[in-house]
Amino acid sequence: MSRQSNRTTDSKKMNSELFTLTYGALVTQLCKDYENDEEVNKQLDKMGYNIGVRLIEDFLARSSVGRCQDFRETADVIAKVAFKMYLGVTPSVTNWSPAGDEFSLILENNPLADFVELPDNHSTLVYSNLLCGALRGALEMVQMAVDVKFAQDTLRGDGVTEIRMKFIKRIEENLPAGDE
Amino acid sequence: MSRQSNRTTDSKKMNSELFTLTYGALVTQLCKDYENDEEVNKQLDKMGYNIGVRLIEDFLARSSVGRCQDFRETADVIAKVAFKMYLGVTPSVTNWSPAGDEFSLILENNPLADFVELPDNHSTLVYSNLLCGALRGALEMVQMAVDVKFAQDTLRGDGVTEIRMKFIKRIEENLPAGDE
Repeated sequence: MSRQSNRTTDSKKMNSELFTLTYGALVTQLCKDYENDEEVNKQLDKMGYNIGVRLIEDFLARSSVGRCQDFRETADVIAKVAFKMYLGVTPSVTNWSPAGDEFSLILENNPLADFVELPDNHSTLVYSNLLCGALRGALEMVQMAVDVKFAQDTLRGDGVTEIRMKFIKRIEENLPAGDE
Repeated sequence: MSRQSNRTTDSKKMNSELFTLTYGALVTQLCKDYENDEEVNKQLDKMGYNIGVRLIEDFLARSSVGRCQDFRETADVIAKVAFKMYLGVTPSVTNWSPAGDEFSLILENNPLADFVELPDNHSTLVYSNLLCGALRGALEMVQMAVDVKFAQDTLRGDGVTEIRMKFIKRIEENLPAGDE
């Protein structure tokens, strides 16, 4: 589906439940379409990437956030502005690597996974992997290459949900970038 | 995906853009999976139905709305409470049939369709059909059989988006009902 150019930034605040259930329908559909969890994880990441490269424009227009000075500032903006804006939750930023190039987002509450239990035959499904792709895609649009993955997931029995983000490099400006 | 029983009603308000783009990914996936628009429309309605039968529980818990006295009250609750809660918009209720068994919800702004343009080869796609299924499923859970369909759609060139709802019958209580 293509996008119209006349987007506005008027805010429509909504509760997350319809989104949560719709996301569940998407994951269920992908589980029907693809042979194994690994393929589904890959598709979710790819869809997320394509969403991220679009969402960043809305985010910049809506948040008035300027260029981040360093990865620590980026981490704070993601947690306190972006997650709050689009998911209604604020993860904590923690577990920094000594070099300052890796951190974790800890979600006490993952709206995507509300009311969800993974069936036994999907033990390697990274249910919320769309989020990783979205973060990767959005940051790529602001010239930041990052690696994003789930390190812990309450759906797989962990105590919290942890997204691990690693800075890879700053991308040269003016390179064309688009859908994957 | 199954649902956990320990659902809470704490509210997570979020902007609609991530939902809008995720819904777009779902419709795009279904367009890949099914041969024609008619099949996609059917799938969206079915997914919506399954979402509606789940969402109603959350809605009743969150809204404290009691049993509606008549279809007019139902219409108002759908427009002013349910749409506002889960989509962040309030459609107007209009075009009542003389018998009071049909009305229209007019959406000036359909969050699901923000930034969307239908490709030429999907001219019969009812892009937001998930909403019809969700309304049908949710109302069935409160013993109301309704027919729901899009009468107008800005994505197909109409001036507004119009969902037409028709009361069919009151369902006898105590009948088991579940996923389709």
